[in-house]
Amino acid sequence: MSIAATLPAAAISLERFIRDTIPLARQIDVHLRAWRDDALVLAAPLAPNVNDKGCAFGGSLASVMTLAGWALVELALRQRGFDCDVFVAHSELRYLAPVWADFEALATLAPEQDWDSFIATLRERGRARIQVHCRVPAVEGDAATLEARFVAKRRDS
Amino acid sequence: MSIAATLPAAAISLERFIRDTIPLARQIDVHLRAWRDDALVLAAPLAPNVNDKGCAFGGSLASVMTLAGWALVELALRQRGFDCDVFVAHSELRYLAPVWADFEALATLAPEQDWDSFIATLRERGRARIQVHCRVPAVEGDAATLEARFVAKRRDS
Repeated sequence: MSIAATLPAAAISLERFIRDTIPLARQIDVHLRAWRDDALVLAAPLAPNVNDKGCAFGGSLASVMTLAGWALVELALRQRGFDCDVFVAHSELRYLAPVWADFEALATLAPEQDWDSFIATLRERGRARIQVHCRVPAVEGDAATLEARFVAKRRDS
Repeated sequence: MSIAATLPAAAISLERFIRDTIPLARQIDVHLRAWRDDALVLAAPLAPNVNDKGCAFGGSLASVMTLAGWALVELALRQRGFDCDVFVAHSELRYLAPVWADFEALATLAPEQDWDSFIATLRERGRARIQVHCRVPAVEGDAATLEARFVAKRRDS
């Protein structure tokens, strides 16, 4: 994914916010690796995220993918000057192959979703929903995928 | 749920196994509260599982519900003398209400699922799948639900 190697201040600030306010994110040891307006990458090491079989725990994969989607939406809103509560409402996860190494989760807007209509609804109703896709790439194909719906509610409305 | 207050040795042993082999489960601080052959309850305190809004992090709810389902299947297999790798293959989660306190996840077999046919397939093919439902009860209704498919593969086949 072609994203600037140097993270913008907004992304660095969000990474710190995640690690400071969500204890489990710090335990998972997530780092924000890359970001542009419609895509975001979180990375996590395997060691704190192993299961009884020595590969990545399903709960860790679910957490990192959900966080990546949440961070994508949160950052888009912050960049546009919105102060919102963003939360996951629904998600569907596929665990396709075991993950035996450090891993990354790449979140993007789902097809046919765009920030403009999301923001327009948010302005109009104080609340809006958006679909996000996320995947943990493997050597071939994906090791896991998530399709999730996030809801944003304006704090100031 | 009417389950004996004293956990059988198999359940105590599985709780220890989960906390010893899955670092994130220890961080989440899950405890096995109750178990019978077709239902299992895991509990977790809110403190290590909060998000930026002060309620339960979606990744924690996903992890505890997935672990509860996994533990239900793992215990059923251990009780029947099977040595299997059990892993989650697919899950659908609904986040219905924020969780502001310590919480529990109750896992049960999905309707029309039974251990007998699961075990029969496992004996025949060395591999079988089963559907599990899980919910985090709220004061009214559920705060979150999970429908998941787990796969068991015999290690000795």
